[in-house]
Amino acid sequence: MSDRPAKGRADGSRRLLEKMARGPAGWLSGDGPRSSIVLSSRVRLARNLKGVPFGARAGDDGREVVVAETKGAAGAVPALRGSVYIDVAALPEIDRQLLVERHLISRDLAADGGSRGVLVAPDERLSVLVNEEDHLRLQCVASGYQLETAWGAADELDTEIASRLAYAFSDAWGYLTACPTNVGTGMRASVLVHLPALVLTKQIGRVLQGITQVGLAVRGLHGEGTEVMGNFFQVSNQATLGLAEADIVRNLIRVTQQIIDNEDSAAEVLLRDARAEIEDKVFRSYGILSHCRVISTEEVMSLSSAVRLGVHLGILGATPVATLNKILVLTQPAHLEHALRLTPESAPDHKRADMIRSLLAPSPSSN
Amino acid sequence: MSDRPAKGRADGSRRLLEKMARGPAGWLSGDGPRSSIVLSSRVRLARNLKGVPFGARAGDDGREVVVAETKGAAGAVPALRGSVYIDVAALPEIDRQLLVERHLISRDLAADGGSRGVLVAPDERLSVLVNEEDHLRLQCVASGYQLETAWGAADELDTEIASRLAYAFSDAWGYLTACPTNVGTGMRASVLVHLPALVLTKQIGRVLQGITQVGLAVRGLHGEGTEVMGNFFQVSNQATLGLAEADIVRNLIRVTQQIIDNEDSAAEVLLRDARAEIEDKVFRSYGILSHCRVISTEEVMSLSSAVRLGVHLGILGATPVATLNKILVLTQPAHLEHALRLTPESAPDHKRADMIRSLLAPSPSSN
Repeated sequence: MSDRPAKGRADGSRRLLEKMARGPAGWLSGDGPRSSIVLSSRVRLARNLKGVPFGARAGDDGREVVVAETKGAAGAVPALRGSVYIDVAALPEIDRQLLVERHLISRDLAADGGSRGVLVAPDERLSVLVNEEDHLRLQCVASGYQLETAWGAADELDTEIASRLAYAFSDAWGYLTACPTNVGTGMRASVLVHLPALVLTKQIGRVLQGITQVGLAVRGLHGEGTEVMGNFFQVSNQATLGLAEADIVRNLIRVTQQIIDNEDSAAEVLLRDARAEIEDKVFRSYGILSHCRVISTEEVMSLSSAVRLGVHLGILGATPVATLNKILVLTQPAHLEHALRLTPESAPDHKRADMIRSLLAPSPSSN
Repeated sequence: MSDRPAKGRADGSRRLLEKMARGPAGWLSGDGPRSSIVLSSRVRLARNLKGVPFGARAGDDGREVVVAETKGAAGAVPALRGSVYIDVAALPEIDRQLLVERHLISRDLAADGGSRGVLVAPDERLSVLVNEEDHLRLQCVASGYQLETAWGAADELDTEIASRLAYAFSDAWGYLTACPTNVGTGMRASVLVHLPALVLTKQIGRVLQGITQVGLAVRGLHGEGTEVMGNFFQVSNQATLGLAEADIVRNLIRVTQQIIDNEDSAAEVLLRDARAEIEDKVFRSYGILSHCRVISTEEVMSLSSAVRLGVHLGILGATPVATLNKILVLTQPAHLEHALRLTPESAPDHKRADMIRSLLAPSPSSN
């Protein structure tokens, strides 16, 4: 992290937010393994500082200590070189919403009071939430299906931070956290998967049931308490205690592979039994996305899910996954409002359609 | 009409039917006046031969006399040079349906028994129904809004036929017809109009009521008893007695002009008050039509109506009305079945989508 004066840092946040509104994070490049099914792999480690009260008990003073110590420690970590600390408490609502849409901060961190923020590395692959539920949440997200890579980078970041800050740790319990459900490893590993074929073949219920039965959790696109949109599901470990980090990751990899296999089988069934209907659905969705003049975020999610399925099935070869990821991220309300400096009168559904057309142009062969 | 032997004539019918299935009639060229609102102008004259019983009473012998006399007379009429007599009684169901879809014969003529047919001039602008409800129905159809032209050509054909055949005519009643509702002039003049803006602005009910109040009739795309599809309405005179032909035509021209003015005003209102929604509807419809892989006739009607509105409003400049007319005609079930020699297993909704894409290619600028 650069150690510029306060004004410089604020400008850094502003520049980063502006840049974010205009392009997706590096992990949405679509170049990771199996990226047409697995959007991203993510590992988050909850950590707290020894000697500072946890959560709400930290008070303003405690929070300031955490912010200062984290900035100090992070400034010396090579992997965080060039990162920017965004003071979330000082942001207008639109910027907080931008960070939520980007999966950088949780809705809780956006809403809570008090000094808090997020430290973001240049490509957004690494980040550190400061003063959310825990003092620190170290995050690493990787493109596609590469949980081992995400875990390796998070673990390395954790080691670097730990060498500079004293964590609250118990030999009996492991890492101590504000909420007992995170105690132990403090780890949440997750994958964001796109499962349209399982939804279309009505097997998704059975598959999700299987996932929860082996102790994993399934959530919507924006984590806990958010609905499933565009056939995206976030699958993560529940237990943080009693398993080593490597076992948690290995377990999630095993289940994710099963989910991918299930989705692949469902896709094969669709192509075998309902090829015309699926092609029709894919191409109609592409036709609407590439021609409409007014569109809501929800409809973008739904139509781009069908187009993504088409790309996955090899029906719509000319549209890269990276373009779909751009559409998914950049057309969200806060991104759109930010990038286009919209006023309340500027008809965002209209601007959203314009942006999608410019992202999709030129039209692929329709044969 | 060429006077070839029976085998030659049958081959002529076959060739004409094959040609029809592959291209629209000349009057669908879209080059007539106001052709984005008025698809066609049509005049039909009911005539019966003196000395032959009318309608069902004609019997097989009477019908044969009518066919023979009509062929004989028509063979000498310059305007009918090169025309082909299609023996409808000898046609398989699919061919009869083709002629109905083409507006050349009525559903009644397709279904009735006994010797009957239609004499068709090369560009399908002139035709003579033989042994439908009346012995003869002389038809002229012109592209766009040109009732005077259609009436002039029908009148000329009538004069030519009348100089060669003796019509049943009463000084008191005028031309005698099988059904008293046609007696007098025996004339039905009609326009086929496309009124999407009046439908979208919910003014169509009031306008249709006004039309019937001045003694005109409104029907669907395929005449009496057919439903309104794709916002197409057929407007025609009801009364055939007590008005001169020229007055019937003049009256219909006046009302049609009012309908066109109403549609134009409704279109202006749409562009002023709901431009984004209309553009969205037009472009989505175009996007679906140009990308779908499976589509029904009904959906083609509905989507191409929105695209036609877009062309009319200048929103979608690159698609000619002639292309929309082709889509309207050639994707109908019998046309499709005929042109592609479909078997029952060959998924017509799939072939219809393929044909539309090939007719619409290349894609117009979407901006």
